[in-house]
Amino acid sequence: MPRYKLTLEYDGTGLVGWQRQDTGPSVQGALEEAVFRFCGERVTAFGAGRTDAGVHALGQVAHIDLGRDEAPATVQKAVNFHLRPTPVAVLDCTLAAPDFHARFSAVARHYRYRIVNRKAPLTLDLDRAWSVLAPLDAAVMQRAARCLIGHHDFTSFRAAQCQARSPTKTLDRLDVSRAGDEITVLASARSFLHNQVRAMVGSLKLVGEGKWSEADLQAALGARDRSAAGPTAPACGLYLIGVDY
Amino acid sequence: MPRYKLTLEYDGTGLVGWQRQDTGPSVQGALEEAVFRFCGERVTAFGAGRTDAGVHALGQVAHIDLGRDEAPATVQKAVNFHLRPTPVAVLDCTLAAPDFHARFSAVARHYRYRIVNRKAPLTLDLDRAWSVLAPLDAAVMQRAARCLIGHHDFTSFRAAQCQARSPTKTLDRLDVSRAGDEITVLASARSFLHNQVRAMVGSLKLVGEGKWSEADLQAALGARDRSAAGPTAPACGLYLIGVDY
Repeated sequence: MPRYKLTLEYDGTGLVGWQRQDTGPSVQGALEEAVFRFCGERVTAFGAGRTDAGVHALGQVAHIDLGRDEAPATVQKAVNFHLRPTPVAVLDCTLAAPDFHARFSAVARHYRYRIVNRKAPLTLDLDRAWSVLAPLDAAVMQRAARCLIGHHDFTSFRAAQCQARSPTKTLDRLDVSRAGDEITVLASARSFLHNQVRAMVGSLKLVGEGKWSEADLQAALGARDRSAAGPTAPACGLYLIGVDY
Repeated sequence: MPRYKLTLEYDGTGLVGWQRQDTGPSVQGALEEAVFRFCGERVTAFGAGRTDAGVHALGQVAHIDLGRDEAPATVQKAVNFHLRPTPVAVLDCTLAAPDFHARFSAVARHYRYRIVNRKAPLTLDLDRAWSVLAPLDAAVMQRAARCLIGHHDFTSFRAAQCQARSPTKTLDRLDVSRAGDEITVLASARSFLHNQVRAMVGSLKLVGEGKWSEADLQAALGARDRSAAGPTAPACGLYLIGVDY
């Protein structure tokens, strides 16, 4: 039974997220349905990151098992054909080892968060970035972000519905940079708590607009209380950009 | 009667183009309507480039005259407010000299054309780039593009409905580059014929996939016949990125 590793891109705007749900189209559901239309098999697709509704991906990774051998290029082409018109595309497909698991074998997940920081509303970036009107100081955000890097209890940046057993995670990267009107936050870790990136970005935004100091961010982390940190940044700015194995 | 210079961004996907038409929403119509809702005046907006249906802008320039003095920041804010939910935004608004004309004072127009060159269909870039599946050699396209630079009769790259008096234009820049899956064509000139950039890109694509040589492109230019050149590239890949005065 061959196992295939799929690299996926999607526009999360109209989707309920990675996970199959009754409430609307999901990435997992679209992928499984496309595989069924291709080869008649009812598979379960496992994804590296269970992205929420509205969150995008440039490099989500999933795996599926098929009952018969198919060339990876055939799988990619056929699944892409049957995915239409859902805004999900298979960028790459390779044969994986039988013990490869898209979720459990992952050693690092990389997210990008996009903020467009200007007074004018968004047009081409609507639903593809967070529109923040108040001027943000990206250099101050970058300095403050350092206090979140490392091994911490991230309870303050964890959604109530988070199912992780432990709130302790190791954050390897949290970089903030500006190019013109756009502020990019890059976050990397072995794994994240539910909404962790968006909660961190929501707090960094408070720092960037001068409402919070670096010490306030540090205190929010130390409080181990979700209400001590800033609001959760909108889903539309978040992109799962890659997964390492 | 103060004159205002507006820099505009828009997502052209659902629009009939710059020019007001009965067939659907236009940039000009949306802008004029927003000004009316703001101050009750029926103005005519003049644009630097009359972009077609589906063509986007990151830096279109327009001018309007108002009957009373308003701070440019007020005009920008109010027009942006009344433009909603049309995907058109005023990025900048300044007072202009009484003889400034968005179209006739322009000395250079800059366009970007985006090609995503990969086998997977588009998701986030749907309607924002041309999806070309066949592998393109951007270096060969870049070399061939040089023959179009300069002062030429561009009849071969001119739409039938083009209203320009002369088919002779000076093309100052035509650069092709690749970054990952994305090929960017940058074109600059004082002015362009109708569909000129898209017709040039359609021919460069033939060069990039090896169907045409550099000599074929040169011959197409020399033929002074629209049917001698390649097809017109889709509108969705084209962006008016800036106008110089």
